[in-house]
Amino acid sequence: MEIPTLEQVRAAAARIAPHAHRTPVLTCRALDKITGARLHFKCENLQKVGAFKFRGACNAVLSLSDERAARGVLTHSSGNHAQALALAARIRGVTATIVMPTTAPAVKVSAVEGYGGRILRCAPTQADRERVARQALEETGAELVHPYDDPRIIAGQGTAALELLEQAGELDLVLAPVGGGGLMSGTLVTLSALSPATRVVGVEPAGADDARRSLREGRVLPSDDPRTVCDGLLTSLSERTFAIIRRHIEAIVTSSDEATLRAMRLIWERMKIIVEPSAAVTLGALLEDRIPGVRGKRLGLILSGGNVSLDRFFSF
Amino acid sequence: MEIPTLEQVRAAAARIAPHAHRTPVLTCRALDKITGARLHFKCENLQKVGAFKFRGACNAVLSLSDERAARGVLTHSSGNHAQALALAARIRGVTATIVMPTTAPAVKVSAVEGYGGRILRCAPTQADRERVARQALEETGAELVHPYDDPRIIAGQGTAALELLEQAGELDLVLAPVGGGGLMSGTLVTLSALSPATRVVGVEPAGADDARRSLREGRVLPSDDPRTVCDGLLTSLSERTFAIIRRHIEAIVTSSDEATLRAMRLIWERMKIIVEPSAAVTLGALLEDRIPGVRGKRLGLILSGGNVSLDRFFSF
Repeated sequence: MEIPTLEQVRAAAARIAPHAHRTPVLTCRALDKITGARLHFKCENLQKVGAFKFRGACNAVLSLSDERAARGVLTHSSGNHAQALALAARIRGVTATIVMPTTAPAVKVSAVEGYGGRILRCAPTQADRERVARQALEETGAELVHPYDDPRIIAGQGTAALELLEQAGELDLVLAPVGGGGLMSGTLVTLSALSPATRVVGVEPAGADDARRSLREGRVLPSDDPRTVCDGLLTSLSERTFAIIRRHIEAIVTSSDEATLRAMRLIWERMKIIVEPSAAVTLGALLEDRIPGVRGKRLGLILSGGNVSLDRFFSF
Repeated sequence: MEIPTLEQVRAAAARIAPHAHRTPVLTCRALDKITGARLHFKCENLQKVGAFKFRGACNAVLSLSDERAARGVLTHSSGNHAQALALAARIRGVTATIVMPTTAPAVKVSAVEGYGGRILRCAPTQADRERVARQALEETGAELVHPYDDPRIIAGQGTAALELLEQAGELDLVLAPVGGGGLMSGTLVTLSALSPATRVVGVEPAGADDARRSLREGRVLPSDDPRTVCDGLLTSLSERTFAIIRRHIEAIVTSSDEATLRAMRLIWERMKIIVEPSAAVTLGALLEDRIPGVRGKRLGLILSGGNVSLDRFFSF
């Protein structure tokens, strides 16, 4: 089981630099006042495709040999990773095949198509998804790029923390959401090597706290029947992300959906940026006072994405 | 009639640097594709109080002698300038008095109060506003700080273009909205001196195009009966802002409200940042193809502010 190193994160940073945004780190006096800490928001919602996922996908696609790349890449995700992989493949000039259930919302299908991805529909069952993916892999010889259980993906996601440190300077504590653990693993690889004194805490929705329970039990527990508005944080850890998280993380805490939505509104209103619910769990946990010892401290929060439907706001 | 110089803009930049955000310049491949140009967005929606107005207000308040400052500052604006002046005064440790009509929305009143401003209510007529302001000025000896007809304000607003040039490099064309002309005047003072080859075009709402008509007639025309969703662009030019604009600007064009709202939605959706309608007129004019010769060119767009009610989106 390959675990990426800081050197691989640095290599990823160099690889994706011509294509990814170096997203800004924003501060907000109003939110500092509310939380009592000095917050530095790494704005991955302003990343290409609106999420940190582009970092990992871009690194994975650009890591392939020309020969491998020519056969294309494939994933079965209907979230931000699918869009990220489609864009990364287009940049490389190869085909991205995305296996999506027939139940996936039209807006997600068209987002992937907008980045030039090729969609394969499957029935909304794990079995059919795997069947369709396997068949496509056999036919095309494409490279399967898992949304998080992949050292190239983890190394790519780790570049966000690398930039955060460069931009914000020393940090006492870094917070990031935990879904499948790709962002958190990459963050830990970077920070444990570069800034071992920085505490790292993960945040999950209270209704999808499988990583927290996994940490407590010492083994990967599945995310069964998750209930949360955070649609980006429904997945379980993999053995690989669990191994990294278990080794380096200080703790995983939770945010209730109510606190997450309050945090999301505060970020929109006070910072004037759009984040999705999954990205607001870190501030949500601070609002609920779930993390001890933050008063007066320098915190980094990775805002993971901004892909949320605006139909409720715009009536046209 | 004092017109600020580039040196005054530079002095303003140094003066406000410890307090104002150096806002990021963002790019967006999707919007480049739609417009055919290479767009650089100067994100003053991410400025303190959510608008470029903080630059001018901060410069004005910090320019005062200790003796003048001690008597406080006053304005009659219910928009972003009022919040900006209140915050600038709080930073200086002095009182900002804001004269506001009894009809001003509660959210604007509480925003000013949130920054520590002192509100004086007046009847919603020009006569009563002036009466209340005059009386307060007499009683307190406060300094009147006009939202735009003030060289300190204009110099402060010009710092946005100064940063934009530093951040984006050479630009072929810069676009900014025109309301009272403070932002546009400051932009022109900076660019005409620092980058005379850069074209500068102003944008107004089609339903509030008094500056465009003023330019054509060669004299300041009032903004009477403006009809637009852009509540930040309802005011008329002053003789001072008109003089600067007339001397240096290439043209003023318009954006229909329909194009402005389309542009606003595109900015929210593709860039994941919140802008108010007034800030979206520049992209609106590009969508309506109002500005010739932009294809392939390097454009700067000053996104003026992001203060818009989110009640329609958040139901709590």
